[in-house]
Amino acid sequence: MDWWHELPADEPFGLANLPYAVADFPDGARVVARIADHALDLARCAEHAGMESGAVWDRPSLNAFLAEGPASWAAARTWLQDTLRDQTYADCVAPHLHPLDGLDLLLPLEVADYVDFYASEHHATNVGELFRPGQPALTPNWKHLPIGYHGRSGTVVVSGTDVVRPCGQRKGPNDPEPVFGPSVRLDIECELGFVVGGSSAIGEPIALDRAWEHIFGVVLLNDWSARDIQAWEYAPLGPFLGKSFATSISAWVVPMAALSAAHVPLPAQDPAPLPYLRGDAATGLDISCAVTWNDTLVSTPPFAQMYWSPAQMLAHLSVNGASTRPGDLFGSGTISGPAKETRGSFLELSWNGAEPVTLGDGSTRSFLQDGDTITLTATAPGPGGSVIGFGACTGTIRPALTSSP
Amino acid sequence: MDWWHELPADEPFGLANLPYAVADFPDGARVVARIADHALDLARCAEHAGMESGAVWDRPSLNAFLAEGPASWAAARTWLQDTLRDQTYADCVAPHLHPLDGLDLLLPLEVADYVDFYASEHHATNVGELFRPGQPALTPNWKHLPIGYHGRSGTVVVSGTDVVRPCGQRKGPNDPEPVFGPSVRLDIECELGFVVGGSSAIGEPIALDRAWEHIFGVVLLNDWSARDIQAWEYAPLGPFLGKSFATSISAWVVPMAALSAAHVPLPAQDPAPLPYLRGDAATGLDISCAVTWNDTLVSTPPFAQMYWSPAQMLAHLSVNGASTRPGDLFGSGTISGPAKETRGSFLELSWNGAEPVTLGDGSTRSFLQDGDTITLTATAPGPGGSVIGFGACTGTIRPALTSSP
Repeated sequence: MDWWHELPADEPFGLANLPYAVADFPDGARVVARIADHALDLARCAEHAGMESGAVWDRPSLNAFLAEGPASWAAARTWLQDTLRDQTYADCVAPHLHPLDGLDLLLPLEVADYVDFYASEHHATNVGELFRPGQPALTPNWKHLPIGYHGRSGTVVVSGTDVVRPCGQRKGPNDPEPVFGPSVRLDIECELGFVVGGSSAIGEPIALDRAWEHIFGVVLLNDWSARDIQAWEYAPLGPFLGKSFATSISAWVVPMAALSAAHVPLPAQDPAPLPYLRGDAATGLDISCAVTWNDTLVSTPPFAQMYWSPAQMLAHLSVNGASTRPGDLFGSGTISGPAKETRGSFLELSWNGAEPVTLGDGSTRSFLQDGDTITLTATAPGPGGSVIGFGACTGTIRPALTSSP
Repeated sequence: MDWWHELPADEPFGLANLPYAVADFPDGARVVARIADHALDLARCAEHAGMESGAVWDRPSLNAFLAEGPASWAAARTWLQDTLRDQTYADCVAPHLHPLDGLDLLLPLEVADYVDFYASEHHATNVGELFRPGQPALTPNWKHLPIGYHGRSGTVVVSGTDVVRPCGQRKGPNDPEPVFGPSVRLDIECELGFVVGGSSAIGEPIALDRAWEHIFGVVLLNDWSARDIQAWEYAPLGPFLGKSFATSISAWVVPMAALSAAHVPLPAQDPAPLPYLRGDAATGLDISCAVTWNDTLVSTPPFAQMYWSPAQMLAHLSVNGASTRPGDLFGSGTISGPAKETRGSFLELSWNGAEPVTLGDGSTRSFLQDGDTITLTATAPGPGGSVIGFGACTGTIRPALTSSP
């Protein structure tokens, strides 16, 4: 019996989970799977066991594996679980397990197109009230389609990467002219990110009932947002520099196969959406998130409260014939529940500064200060009463560059 | 004397131009340069001439060449012009020249991030009047910053690719509920696209006076737009499915070095923009575009009338610290001049259907019909009175798929 044969039932990174990441080994970056506090070097383990298809993991990103599609992902997972459970394979596993402590994890995928949705009714209502006072909080289209927009793929960074406070233009409603400088309203958005695999051709929409087959797995995602830059720039074409400076994702990608017990019904959708967004596949996911501001837990956003299903998001994204590629990533939008302590952005938690948040050291905050560290974590129910953990998504704010133009 | 030594002075693809493309040869796709109606197989020509650095052209995209940066681009151009001018090198050139007729040109670059701006005051004014009647045509931010948003990189296609009419939701102001179906208001946007090379790190803005060094070249770009889908979806986060189904670019990338004689002063900017957008590098480009609808020339959009400079667009895009990558592409937004016959979209040309366009066969159109072909072309002044041509950007509308979900 080796240690990974006898993990406790409540281990969030047990054999029911097995998330993937990319580790920077001295002889090259390769795909790994997490088992408790260790990473398994998958390509070397597969080579040792004589499984030739493991060569797809001998790459510095998940993209080649993502390209293979759902049958390959399922076969790989079955092989991996069998290899880890069967004590006769211990010699193929043990030499290739590395303690996570000291291992450098890289961005797990080359992000192709990055789309961000806006799928929480509570978040959209709060933002509408704050950004467009006096108008209906939800735009007329909100309950008919999952609103989304494209973000910047090239600035998606892995958990642990520092975030430089962005500079930009801002103009308050009473300022006569815009001013330039570091953002003074730097915020977070606690989201889930969905990693798309396989591909679909241009002109070929992904039907709702096939959408989950195209989703490989889930990351935690922090859509850092400069609210002052965003408020001034976003009409009429949407967010741009207020978001594009950095988007952090967790190093670990939890496979959808590990979340089979987490599917839950969506909150009621009224009015019923159009037929292409309707069907049994439109499920939610019971994933409980947590936002830690420095050392203080400040929010517990519930993904189960999201109005739109990830499957609806992908069906909508492609219904116009837009193609998808391995490495496409889409975010859910900020996860906010109905209760104040479940809001997923500081704009909402502090109600735009009117109700500052008190941290454990007695200090108060409405938005991020230089040196602040934000950590997102999450758990979901696993099969047979087990727990599925998500790797943390963390980032620390560095001061704006004084050399800005 | 070989034929390329004695091209006429008004040849739009003479030695002062030399645009790049990627051709699909039987033994692989490689970078080519255009000389009149021929393509020079650059990697093979360079190999023949003993220039080892030409291996960067032995690739199925321009990206490796783009990554090398401006000093390398200049050296390559000097080598190429010398090789073509010097009659002693004719033996290195002649075997590697291929007639364009019958040569298949591919998408010239792997598009990293695609951003689209909105830089024509005439276009933004027209659209504001049509989409937001009763409100000021320009949003308050419009003259303070070049408004832009991210588009879908994965659906940028090369000239000649058919465009499938997209399906989606639309809802007219008097419709009680949205309906789903093929777009009935399919439009074009005549734009220039700027191909970014080299790279800039996250947290390091590109200053205005260095911005042109990061721009490798220019393509013609048609930002196909489903106005009915766009009008219903775009509030509050901007265009998404109304644009993401296809964006066409010309196969030929005209290097910025060929456009040295095309820089012109911008129209007056009032109010003066913030300092990071101000400087001598904020020039326009005297590029004259033409839009042909089937066989009828319907518009001649003048790029020289654009309010914002491409250098300002790139300085703005990165001022928040967003990094850039080789293969980033940004569009100018629709090019519309002050006169009706210079408007760059059919929404504007037909004034939202109120003033249909009459084609040469006597038929009238407000938006695109299935089977219609749109071709964008352009010319610019070259050095010494020469003319710089742009390869066409063309696309034909195919009917919507009946198998849509």
